[in-house]
Amino acid sequence: MFGFTVTKKCPVTGARLGSLSTAHGVFATPVFMPVGTQATVKTLAPDELYEIGATIILANTYHLYLRPGPDIVRKAGGLHNFMNYRRGILTDSGGFQVFSLAPLRKITDDGVKFSSHIDGSTHFLTPEKVISVQEDLGGDIIMCFDECSPYPCRYEDARRAVERTSRWAARCREAHTRGDQALFGIVQGNVFADLRRESARALREIGFPGYAIGGLSVGEPKAEMYRILEVMNEELPANRPRYLMGVGTPEDLVEGVRRGVDMFDCVMPTRLARHGTAYTRKGKVVVRNAQYREDFAPLDEDCQCYVCRNYTRAYLRHLIKAGELLGLRLLSYHNIYFLVKLMENIRSAIQEDRFPDFCRAFRAAYSGSY
Amino acid sequence: MFGFTVTKKCPVTGARLGSLSTAHGVFATPVFMPVGTQATVKTLAPDELYEIGATIILANTYHLYLRPGPDIVRKAGGLHNFMNYRRGILTDSGGFQVFSLAPLRKITDDGVKFSSHIDGSTHFLTPEKVISVQEDLGGDIIMCFDECSPYPCRYEDARRAVERTSRWAARCREAHTRGDQALFGIVQGNVFADLRRESARALREIGFPGYAIGGLSVGEPKAEMYRILEVMNEELPANRPRYLMGVGTPEDLVEGVRRGVDMFDCVMPTRLARHGTAYTRKGKVVVRNAQYREDFAPLDEDCQCYVCRNYTRAYLRHLIKAGELLGLRLLSYHNIYFLVKLMENIRSAIQEDRFPDFCRAFRAAYSGSY
Repeated sequence: MFGFTVTKKCPVTGARLGSLSTAHGVFATPVFMPVGTQATVKTLAPDELYEIGATIILANTYHLYLRPGPDIVRKAGGLHNFMNYRRGILTDSGGFQVFSLAPLRKITDDGVKFSSHIDGSTHFLTPEKVISVQEDLGGDIIMCFDECSPYPCRYEDARRAVERTSRWAARCREAHTRGDQALFGIVQGNVFADLRRESARALREIGFPGYAIGGLSVGEPKAEMYRILEVMNEELPANRPRYLMGVGTPEDLVEGVRRGVDMFDCVMPTRLARHGTAYTRKGKVVVRNAQYREDFAPLDEDCQCYVCRNYTRAYLRHLIKAGELLGLRLLSYHNIYFLVKLMENIRSAIQEDRFPDFCRAFRAAYSGSY
Repeated sequence: MFGFTVTKKCPVTGARLGSLSTAHGVFATPVFMPVGTQATVKTLAPDELYEIGATIILANTYHLYLRPGPDIVRKAGGLHNFMNYRRGILTDSGGFQVFSLAPLRKITDDGVKFSSHIDGSTHFLTPEKVISVQEDLGGDIIMCFDECSPYPCRYEDARRAVERTSRWAARCREAHTRGDQALFGIVQGNVFADLRRESARALREIGFPGYAIGGLSVGEPKAEMYRILEVMNEELPANRPRYLMGVGTPEDLVEGVRRGVDMFDCVMPTRLARHGTAYTRKGKVVVRNAQYREDFAPLDEDCQCYVCRNYTRAYLRHLIKAGELLGLRLLSYHNIYFLVKLMENIRSAIQEDRFPDFCRAFRAAYSGSY
């Protein structure tokens, strides 16, 4: 059911054009996956995601495990039915959230004991349990349970996390039963190139239909992240999709694609919306600022999205200032559209052998605001 | 531009079928107007209101006067352009909000001095100013500034409010200049039948293209409200639309129509949504309750709305419990659809001379939950 083909490579950079086949459709890569943490891409309905052109979205295993619980989702017939989303769904492993959100966590080789950030109840997640939960959730792509080391991190600690991640990956592979789901391995190793190589090799040895690059964009300098991506571009098998987890900004998407990444996800577009900020081709616009009070132009004059065709900055600013949820919704729509469209433009540029030019033009236009 | 025709009357009750012409379309009455307090019907986009079948909506002058301010809305080309809503818009007078929301208000015959509930700034609204603000906002129907007495209220105080409301109505009529807007008078008089009659007669003498019934549903028993509506049905001119302000529940809409009311507005459908509650043909459902945890049926099995065709109670409950705005949005959609559809069914019943039967069937089905 699952498949991946690289259909074209940029002759200059590491950028790849590809095609990802899942149980819920065939999707072009490089792709940005909007994040639907709690079985909903915040404020948006599935129809809007279709309209935006989103294909595969991400849902968070940690959150859904705690609420509503995998039993409810399984009884609903899986996430696709539960949330009424008919395209691709990828669930993460919950590893990152257990390490970043849950208080009182205790990690052993067996698994992670932690308290729920919702009600304080105690839980124990093992690699086997995480696979079972993800089988209940029913995503098209699921992830191995991994240990994500923080930044900064001592070499020895990062190495231990890599080794544990490799052992857990083997257990996940063993536990996984559903043939209609693709299980990806997650490379760890922090900013240490040799650990990253070691992690990638260990996972390749187990063998996965796709590989995620975890533990980046956790506070390290951009240059460190790009350096590690270059290492990954060498180590990961060319015929498998590479997914850079939790990344990122428009610039990071472009830089990731240049280094051979095929899939991305990030909460940024909806989070920025909550802060009254919009992506535009010329950089970010803080639409809640007073300067937009009487600005009756669209958010981004180059944008053809529903929001830019129908609403002004002045109205969006009013909604945000007044605490109206429609404001959040419209900014979320626009921001996700911006990233989905960016990936579409990236794909066209690769297809037409003008990706390096595209990158230069993108940076020149966008760099104003960062 | 503005016009109203009663096209049919129920031979048994006071119910009327009518047609309301405005600068933004012709709308069938009786009609429920969703409330868009701050130039947005909470969580919903205009396209969804069209899809629901909403025709004319209400926006609050008090809120829009304070934020974003009438100058911004005027520069945007009026509310229709500002919020991108292409059907009818009615603005209220702000009177009710000044009396219920603003701290430190001081009422004289000249007008009302009050502090903004947003930033404490001092404002002075006169009948002339309220008309000027509403002309800036550009609604199709606008309201006279009125003094709404509280419940309970002494007869003498209610009488003074009626007299002031009559004097203010004459000043509003005088101040109003825009020919594309219809200015309605507002009847006050609390629960005192003779004051209501006096108020209605004073307004009729000034002469308005439509009459609103204000100061009801402010805490008085239902029987009191229905009694006053019967008085109003006798006093208000038969060839002018009657608008019952701030009402109400599904039952109140039916009872209002029985007593000759043509227009209604109420924040209830979106407010209930915020509390995780949905209207159904069989009464209200508190979908956040644990009993719906594994209920994979739609909110209302008799409902054909977008929400009931696409989502389950279990999913909606999950969204509400998880604090996801999509939950609020979907419940708001369904609840507004419910009331808009109720009015549509009421109109069909009047048209087909079966309104009394409709009322009996509605009450029998709906009465379970109140």
